[in-house]
Amino acid sequence: MNLLEKLHKIGFSRLTSLKDTLDILFSKIKVNPYEEIATTNALNRILAVDFVSKIDIPPFDRSAMDGYAINAEDSYGASPKNPKKIRLIGIIEIGEYTELKLNKGEGIRISTGAPIPEGSNAVIKIEDTEIDKEQINLYTSVVPWKNISKKGEDFKSGTKILSNGTELKAEHIALLTSIGFSKVIVRTKPKVSILSSGDELVEPGDPLKPGKIYNSNTPMISALVKLYGGFVEKEETVKDDKKTIKNRLLDASKESQVIIFTGGTSVGTKDYLPEIMKESGVILAHGVAQRPGAPVLIGFLNETLTFCLPGTPVAAYVSFLRIAGPAIRKMLGCLILDPRIEIMATINKDVPVSNLGFLHYLRVKLERSDDKIIADPVKLRGSSVISSLSFSDGIVEILPHREGLKKGERVIVKLHPK
Amino acid sequence: MNLLEKLHKIGFSRLTSLKDTLDILFSKIKVNPYEEIATTNALNRILAVDFVSKIDIPPFDRSAMDGYAINAEDSYGASPKNPKKIRLIGIIEIGEYTELKLNKGEGIRISTGAPIPEGSNAVIKIEDTEIDKEQINLYTSVVPWKNISKKGEDFKSGTKILSNGTELKAEHIALLTSIGFSKVIVRTKPKVSILSSGDELVEPGDPLKPGKIYNSNTPMISALVKLYGGFVEKEETVKDDKKTIKNRLLDASKESQVIIFTGGTSVGTKDYLPEIMKESGVILAHGVAQRPGAPVLIGFLNETLTFCLPGTPVAAYVSFLRIAGPAIRKMLGCLILDPRIEIMATINKDVPVSNLGFLHYLRVKLERSDDKIIADPVKLRGSSVISSLSFSDGIVEILPHREGLKKGERVIVKLHPK
Repeated sequence: MNLLEKLHKIGFSRLTSLKDTLDILFSKIKVNPYEEIATTNALNRILAVDFVSKIDIPPFDRSAMDGYAINAEDSYGASPKNPKKIRLIGIIEIGEYTELKLNKGEGIRISTGAPIPEGSNAVIKIEDTEIDKEQINLYTSVVPWKNISKKGEDFKSGTKILSNGTELKAEHIALLTSIGFSKVIVRTKPKVSILSSGDELVEPGDPLKPGKIYNSNTPMISALVKLYGGFVEKEETVKDDKKTIKNRLLDASKESQVIIFTGGTSVGTKDYLPEIMKESGVILAHGVAQRPGAPVLIGFLNETLTFCLPGTPVAAYVSFLRIAGPAIRKMLGCLILDPRIEIMATINKDVPVSNLGFLHYLRVKLERSDDKIIADPVKLRGSSVISSLSFSDGIVEILPHREGLKKGERVIVKLHPK
Repeated sequence: MNLLEKLHKIGFSRLTSLKDTLDILFSKIKVNPYEEIATTNALNRILAVDFVSKIDIPPFDRSAMDGYAINAEDSYGASPKNPKKIRLIGIIEIGEYTELKLNKGEGIRISTGAPIPEGSNAVIKIEDTEIDKEQINLYTSVVPWKNISKKGEDFKSGTKILSNGTELKAEHIALLTSIGFSKVIVRTKPKVSILSSGDELVEPGDPLKPGKIYNSNTPMISALVKLYGGFVEKEETVKDDKKTIKNRLLDASKESQVIIFTGGTSVGTKDYLPEIMKESGVILAHGVAQRPGAPVLIGFLNETLTFCLPGTPVAAYVSFLRIAGPAIRKMLGCLILDPRIEIMATINKDVPVSNLGFLHYLRVKLERSDDKIIADPVKLRGSSVISSLSFSDGIVEILPHREGLKKGERVIVKLHPK
């Protein structure tokens, strides 16, 4: 009897591949509405429209150097020993619009970023000149358009510069403000309620009685929800009692777009979640062919997307990263549903897997060795070992058809989300 | 005359290598005081102490499976055709402390995570058994300690589990709460004032007049300060007038630990910053051998660390990432001063550099090609081209002694901060 058959036997209605699970899940998710916010507050928010520039960048021909706006022709043949001479006729400061016009034999002092005056087609750098009263000595020759940033050279009005679904970082905020957008249209954040149940759970800070453990799932999932762009509406630890759990879930479904419940999805004696979901909601998937993290239940309670993740922390963590987190980002309309950075590395030992047909998550620590990056599997026992997460750098996925990894094999490491 | 000589000529008191600049700078920075906050609010904060576990994890021998706690010996020789039989004497729920003791020939129903009763040395999985009233049929044999997570197996009381200076992510929050810490001691956030000057600057949202550009540096630096763990105390655009700039800087120095000023550090006509810093503060460095970003000025105004970064956006961006950002993280006591993720890639063309002796920053876009990652230099002209940042994935540093990069060379790409 393989693990798949066993899981069927012990109560999972069916065990779905991760890919099929995500296909079903994503097909049911609608993208959130949008809101307009100040660009300065938009760090980590998700754009809800394509952004098109309404201006040319640069908006005018401008100097790329501190120097003199000249006619390039006036510099031809200039050298330190044979300087060319022109006449200073004025100055253009940055930010100043000028009516000054340049004729042959003339130069205008100009700052970096200042607009090029009419009649000029080059800027000579200040350090390639010397000034003597009104006479400018040019010590080098410049070609036409030297040291000038042309209007529209970076991009022209009408260019799409950022796509709907982009997660806004410092460089995007710089880009949007540089073309004058003080406000941006972004997706509203999904409201997420985080519930845990388990009579074994004690809240951090309280004394630990025999047989009990501290509740670390709620704070962990809460941090992940924030990292993935959700808004944590509430965090609650619920008594391990069917009626209480049901009432709290139904309450949460009225206030939230997403519920993430940890604990209560295996076939332990007190696991009421599948019953509650059958009675009061719709089940999309129950049981995913992944290890750890098989006992995942996904459904809707009223209109609220509800995830019941395993209570063991590592299983809850990987299930969030692969399923609940990407679902939140789907609501946000993100271009990239899994925001983790991927790194190529070489695995440094054989890693056999225990159950063919399952996607396996291997926690690894990264080390640099010459110009190679080595992925070293973190020694661990079971999915309750939280230290295997904080002592590792990322996760390698071993595909369901693989019997494991071979030492020296190139693997993709998905770094823990930052 | 090389660029170094030219820069000397045009007013930089001296041009310092980036390494020396950082050595001088970091030697002057004191680590911030600490504060105690709720662990649940600690995402992205920096630990101010080593964290040592006061308990064993797991805190007791516990079941890693749903099944029966048994004596391993009672299962020896069991097979589907020849099941061994034992007697069910009770049940242990998760979270329950039990006085139940197990004798030979007995089994106790146990949930994943529940404490192992005295007298038991193994757990047999539920799917390897069948129950018939009070008789449990065992269909397989298990070795001693099978499916038991031993007390202290993950780590023991007294183990240092997180180091002073760690940036707290979801997995660290899970670890800290799992050992009962509801509060953590973290560094206070440095208060940062962000000032820009330049008569050419128009605020985003206002109409763009001829010769003007939008101020994108303030929002960009503000986003970066937040990403690097600072608190933005104020953002201000200052008129390009020496007295005004001086007064605003002195005001900001009373409210902030750090001032970041953009614009006003080149030798343009209106560049007052070096004068102001000489009159009212102490200059640590003026001019750094990097491109873009040479005209950086670093000093103290009163006790406030003051950075004057170039006004061109890309130069301001790289100078923040390499100098001002790490300084903020030094105040935070971070273990890692440059938080950017590094990726190995292969450069896909020759990249000559213009000035030997300077550290060059090359913006690149990453592409995956088979099992290689290719770094493709982003076409750009000058450090004012903001799109070169948002259209790229990261930065390759070309060391000062190198004349450039050769096509096919392996390079380290520092990804833009997330």
